[in-house]
Amino acid sequence: MSQGTTSDVIVIGAGISGLIAARILKQYGLKVTVLEARDRVGGRTLTLRDESIGYVDLGAMFVGATQYRLAQLLKELGIETYRVTEEESVIIQTVGKRTISNDDMPNWSNPIARMDSNNLFRTIDKLAMQVPPEAPWDCPNAEEWDSMTCTTWFDEMCWTKVTRAYADIFVRINFAVESRDLSFLYFLWYIRCAGGVLQVHLVEGGAQEQKIVGGAQQISEKLAKIIGIENVVLSRAVVKLEQGNNEVIVTTSDWGVYKGSYVVCALPQNLLNRVEFAPPLPSVRIQMLQRIPMGCCIKTFMYYEKRFWIEKGLCGSVLSDGPLLSMDDTKPDGSHPALMSFLNGDWGRKLCGETKEKRKAVLCQEYAKSLNSTEALNPINYVEFDWTGEQYSGGCYVCAYPPGVLTRYAKELRNPIGRVYFAGTETASSWTGYMDGAIQAGDRAAKEVLFAMGVINENELTDKHENAESKLDKGSEFLEVSSGMDRYLPSVPVFLKSILAVSVIGVAVFKYRDTLHKGFHLTSQRLIQLLDARR
Amino acid sequence: MSQGTTSDVIVIGAGISGLIAARILKQYGLKVTVLEARDRVGGRTLTLRDESIGYVDLGAMFVGATQYRLAQLLKELGIETYRVTEEESVIIQTVGKRTISNDDMPNWSNPIARMDSNNLFRTIDKLAMQVPPEAPWDCPNAEEWDSMTCTTWFDEMCWTKVTRAYADIFVRINFAVESRDLSFLYFLWYIRCAGGVLQVHLVEGGAQEQKIVGGAQQISEKLAKIIGIENVVLSRAVVKLEQGNNEVIVTTSDWGVYKGSYVVCALPQNLLNRVEFAPPLPSVRIQMLQRIPMGCCIKTFMYYEKRFWIEKGLCGSVLSDGPLLSMDDTKPDGSHPALMSFLNGDWGRKLCGETKEKRKAVLCQEYAKSLNSTEALNPINYVEFDWTGEQYSGGCYVCAYPPGVLTRYAKELRNPIGRVYFAGTETASSWTGYMDGAIQAGDRAAKEVLFAMGVINENELTDKHENAESKLDKGSEFLEVSSGMDRYLPSVPVFLKSILAVSVIGVAVFKYRDTLHKGFHLTSQRLIQLLDARR
Repeated sequence: MSQGTTSDVIVIGAGISGLIAARILKQYGLKVTVLEARDRVGGRTLTLRDESIGYVDLGAMFVGATQYRLAQLLKELGIETYRVTEEESVIIQTVGKRTISNDDMPNWSNPIARMDSNNLFRTIDKLAMQVPPEAPWDCPNAEEWDSMTCTTWFDEMCWTKVTRAYADIFVRINFAVESRDLSFLYFLWYIRCAGGVLQVHLVEGGAQEQKIVGGAQQISEKLAKIIGIENVVLSRAVVKLEQGNNEVIVTTSDWGVYKGSYVVCALPQNLLNRVEFAPPLPSVRIQMLQRIPMGCCIKTFMYYEKRFWIEKGLCGSVLSDGPLLSMDDTKPDGSHPALMSFLNGDWGRKLCGETKEKRKAVLCQEYAKSLNSTEALNPINYVEFDWTGEQYSGGCYVCAYPPGVLTRYAKELRNPIGRVYFAGTETASSWTGYMDGAIQAGDRAAKEVLFAMGVINENELTDKHENAESKLDKGSEFLEVSSGMDRYLPSVPVFLKSILAVSVIGVAVFKYRDTLHKGFHLTSQRLIQLLDARR
Repeated sequence: MSQGTTSDVIVIGAGISGLIAARILKQYGLKVTVLEARDRVGGRTLTLRDESIGYVDLGAMFVGATQYRLAQLLKELGIETYRVTEEESVIIQTVGKRTISNDDMPNWSNPIARMDSNNLFRTIDKLAMQVPPEAPWDCPNAEEWDSMTCTTWFDEMCWTKVTRAYADIFVRINFAVESRDLSFLYFLWYIRCAGGVLQVHLVEGGAQEQKIVGGAQQISEKLAKIIGIENVVLSRAVVKLEQGNNEVIVTTSDWGVYKGSYVVCALPQNLLNRVEFAPPLPSVRIQMLQRIPMGCCIKTFMYYEKRFWIEKGLCGSVLSDGPLLSMDDTKPDGSHPALMSFLNGDWGRKLCGETKEKRKAVLCQEYAKSLNSTEALNPINYVEFDWTGEQYSGGCYVCAYPPGVLTRYAKELRNPIGRVYFAGTETASSWTGYMDGAIQAGDRAAKEVLFAMGVINENELTDKHENAESKLDKGSEFLEVSSGMDRYLPSVPVFLKSILAVSVIGVAVFKYRDTLHKGFHLTSQRLIQLLDARR
């Protein structure tokens, strides 16, 4: 038991954000202590290593195409990545229909449905681009969009059942909650922070472009080594945080006492509810912390003898309104054939109370149906991790704001309270919810502390990646990436109005064809006369 | 420091709900220890006693007309009540208009607005009656109503600006949050649990009918005496709850250890986030507890030399879309003239960061404007209590569910977890959010423990007040109470359609009057001929 350890800065949380902050502070010669509630580093990254499966990322896994901070960090730490491929077909399964698609965006054969989906996501992108990432509450429609759920907006927007169902799948896979749980403004802001719909949703060119060789937890393990293992104290859940004029005293649940000049809280915001602050947090923060729930996610891996889905021309990706939100997770050398699937939102909630065996059985049945193969019923191994049951995360991937929180409370997110500063991917303004956002937030919080200590000046607060990002801001990635056809495909109401207009004109032409013909004849003659006259 | 105190049952929280549970358990001869984080009993009831103001209820205050449990408890404890009167006029102030009204329901002079408000609240009552209080998730429209905010529903429903603004006031005064924060299903359920719109909203015959002579905190003080002061341990915030097969060990933040066979948690659900459970809570509970935020309420009292508002024919009640939601709080003998006002929802959030002096000044200005008197600018005293800043409540009056929580998580609210049972007004199914609900919940949780211990049988689990309540279920209180005119007043769209129909018929009659006349003439002649032939 460490009684009275004294540091310059105490970092709470040994996930990527906290460790990035600690590394920067250490680089400036400060004594840093990182307190972690779990018996491991990594937070929401967790790599299971095992002879039978090699390694597998039970938590955060993907490296996005435009996640420059993460890419640079991986390079620094000497961690390799590999590209995720989706060469074969994707299965999209909504309202009882199984569609084989070229990629993860719906390309329904029904042209009305295709038009509708195209219009839905183009509109989302257009609206998302109106939401400033640093200050979403300043968006002109902030009030209206933060007063409705995504369900309300989707219901108004969608004309076809398949598109409406796919909208819910989009929320479930990318936010790990249901459309009804989300403020529409938060939904747009999150997409904006990532650069657009396709950035969030796609593999190639998107957030799921690459995976990490050896697993994502290595990032935190390597950072902890750089900081010094002796400075990262595991199994210390913080229960109390007392601020004086010159000092902060942090007490852990095993009665350990840690003193520091500053504190960086680098944990999901909802976990701050576990800490007794003295003096108590400001009223508005007490209220805010009750309004930032985490998503509902169980991550599952089903291992097979071989990649039977590839033989059927399927890449293993299933986007379903049933339990499956899957992708191939076979290693790049072809070893350990596996399908990874999220049980998210309502499906996670329904199945988190069941046994592991039950979940395995449900998934096998679903794989058999979606991949149209009985081989799916005979896995050789099953691994899962229930993030909803993880008391030191409270859920995954990230928080999900209900209506009213983003405009009314989120301004407070990054505001320091006395000597206490806030990191964690929830406080990021770029790629919030992702590993990249965790890095941005940790970097910012560390620099805020350094600035408060007078170690750096105001100019040094600026993030060197902001230039790279400003490129993303120029326009919707979706608009850039989409094919010409999708770009000019109308929405269903515009299409129907056009049909109506053409019909009306058609009928009019048909009915008055004699009059029109006569009129045309007369006009032509008059024109000829005029031309003759001029000659 | 109490190390290792052993009891039959540990009750966490010395508010009304916890103390009711403790009293029942003690009546059955069990050894009970009540742990309270604050240095006082009473929870969300708090009575300030002071020479200059006598006594004043900074927390829960009202005794409702049909709150039978509370009425009976007060009688048992020998606590008196007095009737709240609103004989003079009420000021309703919306969208810049100041209206003088007979009661708290809007009676706009504009007949369209009147029709609209009448229709809004009648519809709310009609829909609320479709929501079963014990199982709101079973309501036929549960899915739809729990996917939208109140804002979405109000926007669809209201035709006039004043009615739309009054709908927000109704939410703000009764729920201490904004319409956008609330699931429409939760809104209906809460009203259903109270017996209807008028039950929730009115003074006479409603939830605000009476106040307690000497203040509401007396209830808990008297209960604590019955239980035995030595069994109610103050200033003990629970930080850990460990369950074994036969025992529960509770640790407090001052390192006190309390052992018991059972535990009753009688605190707002969001505060359970402060407790480390071992084994951890089930996944679905971890998720649920992040989704039950408390309302945002600052309760204020402005004291004056005399009741200047009465002289102006005003009762002191102001229902405003500005900061004021006020009522007279002068003592029944006319002493301590005072106006009480809530700063709720957005107003509470906006002003909670300001100084007490600033809030006082804002309120005085608003009183002067609304009561049309400069005397309002010269108070002799000001008292307030910011419940949003109370870390051991997290807010007031009660929790406020965002969309998706009632249908997906609330089923879990009352489910025991091993040897841990749940009380608190949030778990009530009658008058949830009120003192009456706290009694119902404490009573139920105690009986569940007694049943689990084999002390009582299944029949004894039934609540003796259920018969009294079933009367309320027969129909909407609103429909019963409303005058004949209000009962048959149409909605705005029905009214407009009727006008349209009458106009169309009128025009038709006017246009075809000759034909009609001729037709009538011919028919009459034919009829006469027929009658003649029959003779």
